[in-house]
Amino acid sequence: MKVGIIGGSGYVGGELLRLLANRPDVEIVTVTSRTFKNQPVNVIHAHLLKTLDLYFEDIPSKEVAKRSDVVFTAVPHKAAMTQVPELLTNGAKVIDLSADYRLKPNIYEKIYGTSHSDRERKATYGLPELHRADIRHSDLVANPGCFPTGAILAAAPLVKAGIVERIVFDSKTGISGAGMNPSEVTHYPNVAENILPYNVTTHRHNPEIEQELALLGRCKVHFTPHIIPAVRGILTTAHIFVKKAVSKKDVMDLYWKMYADEVFVRIVEGVPSLGAVRGSNFCDIGCFDVEGDRIVVISAIDNMVKGASGQAIQNMNIMFGLDEKAGLWMPGIAP
Amino acid sequence: MKVGIIGGSGYVGGELLRLLANRPDVEIVTVTSRTFKNQPVNVIHAHLLKTLDLYFEDIPSKEVAKRSDVVFTAVPHKAAMTQVPELLTNGAKVIDLSADYRLKPNIYEKIYGTSHSDRERKATYGLPELHRADIRHSDLVANPGCFPTGAILAAAPLVKAGIVERIVFDSKTGISGAGMNPSEVTHYPNVAENILPYNVTTHRHNPEIEQELALLGRCKVHFTPHIIPAVRGILTTAHIFVKKAVSKKDVMDLYWKMYADEVFVRIVEGVPSLGAVRGSNFCDIGCFDVEGDRIVVISAIDNMVKGASGQAIQNMNIMFGLDEKAGLWMPGIAP
Amino acid sequence: MKVGIIGGSGYVGGELLRLLANRPDVEIVTVTSRTFKNQPVNVIHAHLLKTLDLYFEDIPSKEVAKRSDVVFTAVPHKAAMTQVPELLTNGAKVIDLSADYRLKPNIYEKIYGTSHSDRERKATYGLPELHRADIRHSDLVANPGCFPTGAILAAAPLVKAGIVERIVFDSKTGISGAGMNPSEVTHYPNVAENILPYNVTTHRHNPEIEQELALLGRCKVHFTPHIIPAVRGILTTAHIFVKKAVSKKDVMDLYWKMYADEVFVRIVEGVPSLGAVRGSNFCDIGCFDVEGDRIVVISAIDNMVKGASGQAIQNMNIMFGLDEKAGLWMPGIAP
Amino acid sequence: MKVGIIGGSGYVGGELLRLLANRPDVEIVTVTSRTFKNQPVNVIHAHLLKTLDLYFEDIPSKEVAKRSDVVFTAVPHKAAMTQVPELLTNGAKVIDLSADYRLKPNIYEKIYGTSHSDRERKATYGLPELHRADIRHSDLVANPGCFPTGAILAAAPLVKAGIVERIVFDSKTGISGAGMNPSEVTHYPNVAENILPYNVTTHRHNPEIEQELALLGRCKVHFTPHIIPAVRGILTTAHIFVKKAVSKKDVMDLYWKMYADEVFVRIVEGVPSLGAVRGSNFCDIGCFDVEGDRIVVISAIDNMVKGASGQAIQNMNIMFGLDEKAGLWMPGIAP
Repeated sequence: MKVGIIGGSGYVGGELLRLLANRPDVEIVTVTSRTFKNQPVNVIHAHLLKTLDLYFEDIPSKEVAKRSDVVFTAVPHKAAMTQVPELLTNGAKVIDLSADYRLKPNIYEKIYGTSHSDRERKATYGLPELHRADIRHSDLVANPGCFPTGAILAAAPLVKAGIVERIVFDSKTGISGAGMNPSEVTHYPNVAENILPYNVTTHRHNPEIEQELALLGRCKVHFTPHIIPAVRGILTTAHIFVKKAVSKKDVMDLYWKMYADEVFVRIVEGVPSLGAVRGSNFCDIGCFDVEGDRIVVISAIDNMVKGASGQAIQNMNIMFGLDEKAGLWMPGIAP
Repeated sequence: MKVGIIGGSGYVGGELLRLLANRPDVEIVTVTSRTFKNQPVNVIHAHLLKTLDLYFEDIPSKEVAKRSDVVFTAVPHKAAMTQVPELLTNGAKVIDLSADYRLKPNIYEKIYGTSHSDRERKATYGLPELHRADIRHSDLVANPGCFPTGAILAAAPLVKAGIVERIVFDSKTGISGAGMNPSEVTHYPNVAENILPYNVTTHRHNPEIEQELALLGRCKVHFTPHIIPAVRGILTTAHIFVKKAVSKKDVMDLYWKMYADEVFVRIVEGVPSLGAVRGSNFCDIGCFDVEGDRIVVISAIDNMVKGASGQAIQNMNIMFGLDEKAGLWMPGIAP
Repeated sequence: MKVGIIGGSGYVGGELLRLLANRPDVEIVTVTSRTFKNQPVNVIHAHLLKTLDLYFEDIPSKEVAKRSDVVFTAVPHKAAMTQVPELLTNGAKVIDLSADYRLKPNIYEKIYGTSHSDRERKATYGLPELHRADIRHSDLVANPGCFPTGAILAAAPLVKAGIVERIVFDSKTGISGAGMNPSEVTHYPNVAENILPYNVTTHRHNPEIEQELALLGRCKVHFTPHIIPAVRGILTTAHIFVKKAVSKKDVMDLYWKMYADEVFVRIVEGVPSLGAVRGSNFCDIGCFDVEGDRIVVISAIDNMVKGASGQAIQNMNIMFGLDEKAGLWMPGIAP
Repeated sequence: MKVGIIGGSGYVGGELLRLLANRPDVEIVTVTSRTFKNQPVNVIHAHLLKTLDLYFEDIPSKEVAKRSDVVFTAVPHKAAMTQVPELLTNGAKVIDLSADYRLKPNIYEKIYGTSHSDRERKATYGLPELHRADIRHSDLVANPGCFPTGAILAAAPLVKAGIVERIVFDSKTGISGAGMNPSEVTHYPNVAENILPYNVTTHRHNPEIEQELALLGRCKVHFTPHIIPAVRGILTTAHIFVKKAVSKKDVMDLYWKMYADEVFVRIVEGVPSLGAVRGSNFCDIGCFDVEGDRIVVISAIDNMVKGASGQAIQNMNIMFGLDEKAGLWMPGIAP
């Protein structure tokens, strides 16, 4: 399969390259970067030296599409919507890792404070555990945000059961989600020995979580993210308030049942750990402690893999009828 | 003033020594340790070399009391209740840093799974911001737990205002709270690049928070602690659900008013940071974002100082009519 | 190929399992652990859940050998030498990850302070870059120590050129090298925000480095390791003092030449980074700055992979005539 | 005493403020910042809230000097030399924390690649352990660099004894030395789980170390710094090669003798630890292992205190005949 990557010089692009580097069934036909064009990818991604012999290109979307069966757009929001139509027109399927096609256009425009130039486009929300059948037949998949991936999977079985009143998602993420550009937020002395709550009630992933959970059932959603002194990983503590008493066993049964056939969801004994998912495409879900009307469910993902590039590749596998596990079936790296 | 310290070889004891080392008005008449008796304190606390020329002793409580105006008991729970009666009988005031006198005896016995051998004793809960007047006249102060200190201060003004329905305290602590003894929990590869939720619905500090907030008003309390890859500090994200709509300004007014004269509480712009309180006795409180019926209040303390030894010294200052700031009026260490 | 692992519950065993989990040409016929026998490997190695469905066994060496083409012994020193003879006698090839067969017996006995019960055995030192031909025909490979791997590769070309007078290897390692058992050394508050020099002039890897470099040329060797606040990785700063002036270009030519065909050695521009080798089997070598008679060469490896389990698998590949890169040709994980 | 601080918004300025905040004998008459003028210092230095009620000013050097007995210049190199003459002319003593007056002008010009506009000025190198008498009578003290402070103190007794041939200083520093401005070097994902050697043979502190050690004896000096994943602290491993054999006891005697009366130097058993000096003005020196002609001496300082602002205040105390320990006699913060 011929794969194009638009925006290959950031963390998300680098992770796509890492995960695709060794696939015998994948040919990376182009990886673009305006800033680093004509330079080898290992100038930015030193870890890829020797395993991937590619140079960044700066070519138009049309050209990317023509060379590719599928194109990953790892670009900022607003940029994707200007490229996606041309990619599709020129025959490539698209997996967009930006936020541009995740939300309904009117909500998108409100949340992102910009008009959407491709409002009529139908995209599939690329969370395979909820939308696998649609993904299979879709030409455009909107790859989920990192926080929504862990949050939605942590709550879906209970929400679907129709017993949830309200959820407080208290999420903790590694700093890699802030990207490759240095800033005050990513400055080592500000992150180390600290924890930073941010966009406490206003994070853009909140409506994304709401939109998806609303498809499963009614409930109020609250979301507060924090940055912890770690590079990779998101642990989400979901404080789920229910309308009627349920036992821990009942809760666990809901999860076991919903995720029985899911290859990348693991129900764990005790609490999940970022150490168990690091570098892997797994979403570990555990805890399930019940205290009156509060149930605590905890999920752990690698924000760069299941929270971004790994899930994008999972979507690619589904879209093209490949083994869903292809290129992704490796354990995490621990310790 | 003559000060005795029982249990000086752990982190809490070491922090008492650090904070008392330079006080011209304090003489440390003894610091005990069975394990390290007759050894200089800097064998365990290397940072105290040169600034504190003391040797650990292993002497009976009675002897400690006789030498001291006040005794700090930095011992495990269950141990304190066997020593406190004798200390008081022999004329010393006591500040107990264990959990033994914080809870009502019947609750204590249930939570700690042990009978209480000193049930009739009256102790004052040593959170100066709530009980200063009582502390002043008390011979026995139960120094608050680290999590309760930050949690109670974060919620008190709203609970007191009578508008709170329910609170989810999602707390994040540095690992020093786990003490000086190595364990699987404190093993570096298990802590680094990770975050560990524990005792998710059953932490012993939960009833302590409930007991104190109940004195101010009725509300449901939920508490879940996490260990983050940091040594010092507790950041508590209090998701406070209210019965009626309030504005951010109204919320902030409650906090400004309640803490107007508090020397060690700082209301901050934006979110508090562990970096701003590290090594200091301050409790920083901020955020106050309102989202419908949820108000998010965030507090930050150094768990070793305001969360333990610093607050104990603050209590000592109050009990003996000293300047409450004595020995504690230093800024945090940043970066 | 049928693979047995003796000692599968530690970090080294876990890393063998991680790296072997996905190999279509490898069948793990047994992984032993006395402590965890009959338990699934993911009880200890949570990251292996779903990707490896194995239970620990507690069976005799003889039985392990009978089932296996090759056995990895991931046991403490002294233990290996009691098992290896029986493994070999029963028809398995052996790759020993302990220190027991790395040194000449008389040096071993002096350094490890114990007699060697298998003195006459011939083992091959398993550093493929120096001993590939011997490894190919060997039944017993002594897998190199983590520090020696990075140190020897950093210095070999210059030592072989016969111009080195003396080398100071100042090494910095992540804490995972200290193993899975909690101790004062691995206690998070002792490691974080710190760096710990240890065995400053007496580390057991010193004679191992000396022995191997002596095969290439004469030079004095000094070695001092430090533990840094990191989980994985060893960066070695080799301060190499030479007898005669050489240019940076001349130095680099030596390295390019010696490692031209080495798949797992990468000569890098600038200084190597632990981030570029994390999780991978690469040894990155760089810097080559010349200051008078001092040349600084810096190497970076993942101590768990090229410094232990990855190199062991590389040796297995060589011993069995497989592609040397099999199962190891993945880039590091960055960021 | 009236103190002025030029350049108060960086880490060095913040640390001066922290250390001076509580001194009853010090009045901070001004702290300047062009960028943050008229804003409270706690806007930048959140830890100073409540303990220091000051606003940044943007006033000319002349005005600063007129108000002050002593002025600290915490500005970049090149900037200091344009301000110092005017400060001195207007009656203030000056402690310069930049590099401008540390080196002999001809060496400075070569190393810093700029001409020196105040070449004839006599400044005293502000390392009290070597130059206390001169500091006492000096109007201008050049505060030492952070690396030179730890390196020189680690080697001085042996160099002074005349037996040193050559020294390799392999230093490891926390990232705070890189300052408050975010950059690729301080980007959390680049620092965490890593160690970065930089300016491997060309760091500007090398000639500073050489210049000072040359006053004590002849020896070759090599210096290589590394950034470790820590905020504060410098640990220097000095590999000292001697011309004639000496015993560990002889070595230690030299150190005990030279530093017998030094209040801020602590000779420690075993190896020093960053944890024991964090936040304090101590330089801990230890190890002293002897291996043939190599002696390893290790020093630990807090780069922000003894390596910068604390030492500057120590110099102030000496210049003004105050107790040298004033405002600095606190233990480090551990854990």
